[in-house]
Amino acid sequence: MFAIDGNRLNRRLAEFAEIGALPKGGVNRQALTEGDRQARRMLAGLALARGFRVFQDPMANLFIRRSGRDETLAPLMIGSHLDSQPAGGRYDGALGTLSAFEVLESLEDAGTQTDRPVEVVAWTNEEGCRFAPGCMGSMAFAAGAIPEEWADKQAADGASFPQELAATIESLPEAEMRPLGFPVYSYIEIHIEQGPSLEAENIPIGVVTGIQGTRWLEVTVTGQTAHAGTTGLSYRRDPMRALSAALSGLYDTIMPEDENARFTVGRLRLSPGSVNAIPEDIRCTVDIRHPDPDSLDALEAKITAAFSKEAGRQGCTAAIRRLFDMAPCTFDAGLQDRIEEAASSLQMPSKRMLSGAFHDALFANRIAPAAMIFVPCRDGLSHNEAEFVEPAHATAGCRVMMQAVRTLTASENV
Amino acid sequence: MFAIDGNRLNRRLAEFAEIGALPKGGVNRQALTEGDRQARRMLAGLALARGFRVFQDPMANLFIRRSGRDETLAPLMIGSHLDSQPAGGRYDGALGTLSAFEVLESLEDAGTQTDRPVEVVAWTNEEGCRFAPGCMGSMAFAAGAIPEEWADKQAADGASFPQELAATIESLPEAEMRPLGFPVYSYIEIHIEQGPSLEAENIPIGVVTGIQGTRWLEVTVTGQTAHAGTTGLSYRRDPMRALSAALSGLYDTIMPEDENARFTVGRLRLSPGSVNAIPEDIRCTVDIRHPDPDSLDALEAKITAAFSKEAGRQGCTAAIRRLFDMAPCTFDAGLQDRIEEAASSLQMPSKRMLSGAFHDALFANRIAPAAMIFVPCRDGLSHNEAEFVEPAHATAGCRVMMQAVRTLTASENV
Repeated sequence: MFAIDGNRLNRRLAEFAEIGALPKGGVNRQALTEGDRQARRMLAGLALARGFRVFQDPMANLFIRRSGRDETLAPLMIGSHLDSQPAGGRYDGALGTLSAFEVLESLEDAGTQTDRPVEVVAWTNEEGCRFAPGCMGSMAFAAGAIPEEWADKQAADGASFPQELAATIESLPEAEMRPLGFPVYSYIEIHIEQGPSLEAENIPIGVVTGIQGTRWLEVTVTGQTAHAGTTGLSYRRDPMRALSAALSGLYDTIMPEDENARFTVGRLRLSPGSVNAIPEDIRCTVDIRHPDPDSLDALEAKITAAFSKEAGRQGCTAAIRRLFDMAPCTFDAGLQDRIEEAASSLQMPSKRMLSGAFHDALFANRIAPAAMIFVPCRDGLSHNEAEFVEPAHATAGCRVMMQAVRTLTASENV
Repeated sequence: MFAIDGNRLNRRLAEFAEIGALPKGGVNRQALTEGDRQARRMLAGLALARGFRVFQDPMANLFIRRSGRDETLAPLMIGSHLDSQPAGGRYDGALGTLSAFEVLESLEDAGTQTDRPVEVVAWTNEEGCRFAPGCMGSMAFAAGAIPEEWADKQAADGASFPQELAATIESLPEAEMRPLGFPVYSYIEIHIEQGPSLEAENIPIGVVTGIQGTRWLEVTVTGQTAHAGTTGLSYRRDPMRALSAALSGLYDTIMPEDENARFTVGRLRLSPGSVNAIPEDIRCTVDIRHPDPDSLDALEAKITAAFSKEAGRQGCTAAIRRLFDMAPCTFDAGLQDRIEEAASSLQMPSKRMLSGAFHDALFANRIAPAAMIFVPCRDGLSHNEAEFVEPAHATAGCRVMMQAVRTLTASENV
């Protein structure tokens, strides 16, 4: 029997949730902050205590390696991320990272020998809310280089990406430095579904077939600031009126007309921001998702047209630029089969499903066969302090991962 | 001939515009900031150099007094404010304050004796954008007390109102302290129209009959933050969708249906403010104006109903509270006649008009006969760096003020 310790896993989840803890049970552990560094140090500490080797690369991706029979073989990689949303949940990322570490510890506890090394990874900045885009760590790993333009990235709080990255790497001196990118045998990531379907259908395991495409747009509507009390309608060029009309129309059509489409405005600022002055300009983000690349193009065109039209009607101008563009991906069919077989060998119901969120597995999939295991979360809530995973579901996902890892590494107890 | 020095007035306007100067010619001299203090010190310095007495009260209202024949008589008060919007123009407030000071200097230059003292006032925080509401200085002066709840006021930048007020008072030690509120004979304020009508009709002088009512509302729409990619339409409680729908409907009806109504959303913040998370809650301000008090009530009811309905449709809740409520006011008929007579005696066309903006004169009107003189501004632009007043118009307004002051104080050169 290939056991994992579910109590240890759930205890670890609670311990890591104390780093950046928020009053309602969530965490604020945004990428490259002190909280993020603290979580990386805690995981590295646990790993070194078990005699595993700890590495980090120039993107501060964190690796924990357990040797295999043949050290020259490319490692099987398992993991996720440790950073969070500003008001995020305690399972998003942490569940996959700590489940992977639980697998490594259980292999060690059982004295199991794997044919190849197994490595746990915690990717840097999956969330992308402090420094956009998301998945910077796995993206750079898959590309084998850090894009030059990232050197200019600044957080809303004014922090500089290169400085925060360097400080994060320096905060873990016990990790051996390693170049960016290396051969990987296969990659498996456990993650909460972040949607309602597994819970609704009472299925503990989701075998993820792929990830829908994501595009982030930045919309700027520019009008003319003027006095709120004296400026009559014919003299107004109000960007807020244009924005409201455009958004209202888009909310009423995009998602109601296509159940696979997602349309979200999550960030908005207007200036000068005075109660008695018409705004001069407004800037907001638009997050659109779709499993079909052509539909993503159609959505972007529809959004651009709506803002141009409503801005024109109010004597304003609209400018739209892409912040981020992630094409849909399809995971490795063989790995999907291994995960499904692992679940059924443990008498766990599973179902194949598409991921609505992007994940680091999308980028790992570019350099190695990759796949994901989803577990249910309460009410489908994520990016929310109320995010919750039943301990039994966390344990179940980890057991399936262990089973798949044993199969993929021809493991034997020696 | 009762002369004023138009060149000196326009030179002073340029000098004060250097305090808090912005690149496009405007000023950022928000209430109780260092820029505001600097402007008060400059005016006090000019006054002391001319031998006038300088006072301030516990609200940091600044007074410059020129003695009259009978010092026991209540002073004739003239003035305006020195604070600005975050991206404001150089004439809003400064024109009225410096015109009043020009009248005082011209009386001194001519050795004119007035039957009663004449005082120039610079009221504190007319704009209300850093600390709401507007007109705090004249409001407290008219009430004879500072409302207790103002002790808790905080600026968006975190600054505390009581601390900034105390620091502003301390920054002008040469001013004699004076209690809040005292008898005033009459009050006259010059201000730019902040609207297009005088310029459009080519009339240099507006005799202001009253001020339309203003109400500031704070709207909070609360939904539920969730993942942008995984949360399907039926699981969404998106406050941004509710807000867009409500605002779009209100923009399309309130001002188009009633030319006397004003509807402006000038400030908005949403949280948590992450590109890939549905917002949890959104807070925005609504500025509504109308000359008729019943119409103001109707507007507020319509706005409340719209937000409640759209919030309900999206599974969100809407809460609305009043930040500020200023009833319409009517200025003193006799003073309006004096101003009109002064203009015609100088062969200047004038017209009676309602003010779309509120002004300190609205509060002065509660304790003494008050009136206002409007001068044209280019394109009706205000609360905008592009705000501009023809030097000849500034001079003309000041000449009318001087004429009215001489009549009201039975002045004679001695």
